[in-house]
Amino acid sequence: MVFARIVRVISTRKARSFLVGFGVSAVGFGTAFACSCVTARERVVDSSQFMAEPLTDASSLENNMNDMRSRMEVMILGVQADICRRLAAIDGQEFRVDRWLRKEGGGGVSCVLQDGKVFEKAGVNVSVVYGNLPPAAVEQMRSRGNDLKGNNFPFFAAGISSVIHPRNPFVPTLHFNYRYFEVCEESGKKHSWFGGGTDLTPYYLNEEDVKHFHRTLKDCCDKHDPSFYPKFKKWCDDYFVVKHRGECRGVGGIFFDDLDEPSQEAAFQFVQAGANAVLPSYIPMVLKHKDDPYTDKEHQWQQLRRGRYVEFNLVYDRGTKFGLYTPGARIESILMSLPLEARWEYMHAPEKGTREEELLQVLRTPREWVE
Amino acid sequence: MVFARIVRVISTRKARSFLVGFGVSAVGFGTAFACSCVTARERVVDSSQFMAEPLTDASSLENNMNDMRSRMEVMILGVQADICRRLAAIDGQEFRVDRWLRKEGGGGVSCVLQDGKVFEKAGVNVSVVYGNLPPAAVEQMRSRGNDLKGNNFPFFAAGISSVIHPRNPFVPTLHFNYRYFEVCEESGKKHSWFGGGTDLTPYYLNEEDVKHFHRTLKDCCDKHDPSFYPKFKKWCDDYFVVKHRGECRGVGGIFFDDLDEPSQEAAFQFVQAGANAVLPSYIPMVLKHKDDPYTDKEHQWQQLRRGRYVEFNLVYDRGTKFGLYTPGARIESILMSLPLEARWEYMHAPEKGTREEELLQVLRTPREWVE
Repeated sequence: MVFARIVRVISTRKARSFLVGFGVSAVGFGTAFACSCVTARERVVDSSQFMAEPLTDASSLENNMNDMRSRMEVMILGVQADICRRLAAIDGQEFRVDRWLRKEGGGGVSCVLQDGKVFEKAGVNVSVVYGNLPPAAVEQMRSRGNDLKGNNFPFFAAGISSVIHPRNPFVPTLHFNYRYFEVCEESGKKHSWFGGGTDLTPYYLNEEDVKHFHRTLKDCCDKHDPSFYPKFKKWCDDYFVVKHRGECRGVGGIFFDDLDEPSQEAAFQFVQAGANAVLPSYIPMVLKHKDDPYTDKEHQWQQLRRGRYVEFNLVYDRGTKFGLYTPGARIESILMSLPLEARWEYMHAPEKGTREEELLQVLRTPREWVE
Repeated sequence: MVFARIVRVISTRKARSFLVGFGVSAVGFGTAFACSCVTARERVVDSSQFMAEPLTDASSLENNMNDMRSRMEVMILGVQADICRRLAAIDGQEFRVDRWLRKEGGGGVSCVLQDGKVFEKAGVNVSVVYGNLPPAAVEQMRSRGNDLKGNNFPFFAAGISSVIHPRNPFVPTLHFNYRYFEVCEESGKKHSWFGGGTDLTPYYLNEEDVKHFHRTLKDCCDKHDPSFYPKFKKWCDDYFVVKHRGECRGVGGIFFDDLDEPSQEAAFQFVQAGANAVLPSYIPMVLKHKDDPYTDKEHQWQQLRRGRYVEFNLVYDRGTKFGLYTPGARIESILMSLPLEARWEYMHAPEKGTREEELLQVLRTPREWVE
């Protein structure tokens, strides 16, 4: 797994084969790896495995491998590459890759596969940004109980986020997002935490699929803390709600924020495991249903539900709103979460006893999916 | 014109022909019409001309014809009927009519024509609501400079709002909205004002059409106050902006709020004239282009622009946001403004020199359309 190795990042791709030939896996293992948390497995380095060059320059990453900023950047670039390659292999179409820089500090790598055979639109975005926190973001953090003192807050954020909209209405849409945040008070006091989660939005309910999805997430959580899954499952059900419709966006998953316990290292390990669990939680249902036959009516229902997805993302989603109001944000990367197509019918209501109505019932009353 | 007659509202439709036979135009012309502002032309009454029964009961309307609340309700119901009949005649499909009541007070009449021959989705909604203003609405009004004192604010609002999404990409989308608002402070002091406007969102620029549209609005404004058009045209350009895209939603029109000068009567006359100007400003371009041939590519561009329309309505539009956050609001009436279909392509940019790019240029730099 790419995210279990941290990497001697090489500044030019051409140099790679040369350095590998000289045993590059041992290079950069001096002071940078002084932190005992960085395991021996996190040694082999190859930025050519990523979808694009890292955002932070190679020598800086290399010299700071004991810093969570660097570890997180390398981890999420690895996850991005893993997921994009797997999806592209299934689809037969490659991802478009855009590496972008932000004039206020940092940048990102946005990968999008659009109008594919299996995926209508799949976006996997990594961003590594820093600068001064906009006042609106400070307020939002304070409202979540972060006691930030001062007026000027240097911050750092690194995250991966993704939405995958498949073509077949019997394959659910998947969203995940794993991120690390640091903010400094004027006194120099540093706060840092992780957040993220993975959640599923089916168009038709397949209980077996949903159970597999939740089971994979629960297993991942339980390995770190048995209290995580019940807590983060509820958090997810409470967060992804289209309030004005009185329905959840999908069948949930896990969602968490402000995680900094029991230690930064333990929290990182959990976040890394969460990101690692994306493919095994989701790919089986893609393979199982991608070629299921479907009718125009089923396609239309999918489009209507994608309209609801748009409603959630534009009206409620904190990340999207934060992005849209942030000066210098890359709008195309934020809005790549929107589906290729969506539909709104006035007063649409599925008939009683149909599979469409079955889905609505689950969205209105979240269930427990695993013991 | 329906909105030039106010009406002896009859409580049952069956009674109408009977009363008409007895010269109903003279009935109810006692104390209710004491206000000199209500002209003799505003006499003939026939609620069967509306799309549904009025929201306020017939006898109450009848006894309060000198009250702006009643005059506004009757005016907007008349405009709604005029517009729906005209659009239905052009399309060949009738509007679905839903009359709904709000448990907190008042209700509305929502008329929607969906999946028609000429119109993909056209919604014309009247609402007449009252109760206590939600705290968020109080804050919003204060932020606009309304000096409201107290904690509890009984309010009344009556308005008509409409979005018309035609099928042919060479026919623009139209939006209009005319409304009357009253709010009482705890001291009993009453504030009242009008707001509204009409604006156009083309998919392809046709300068002749846009000039006709603005010319009709300007003529309507100039008859009331020569300062209105320049002021309200700019207000419209400034309001309908998809900020994160750096582009206007369309080619503007007029937009105003908090209008209570030079007198309530004059403001009402202006608002009535604005509502009256909707059909002559818009129908000519519907008739001219509804059968224009178009390609799949042009249809796809229309769908992409409808995606931008959704972005504006869900992210920025004050009315929509206010509605979505208001308990007891009728969501289907608020969101009937959304198109039947919309599309989002990652990094879409029209080629230089195309008609698609021509439109974008106008959206990025609003123009003056009439002298």
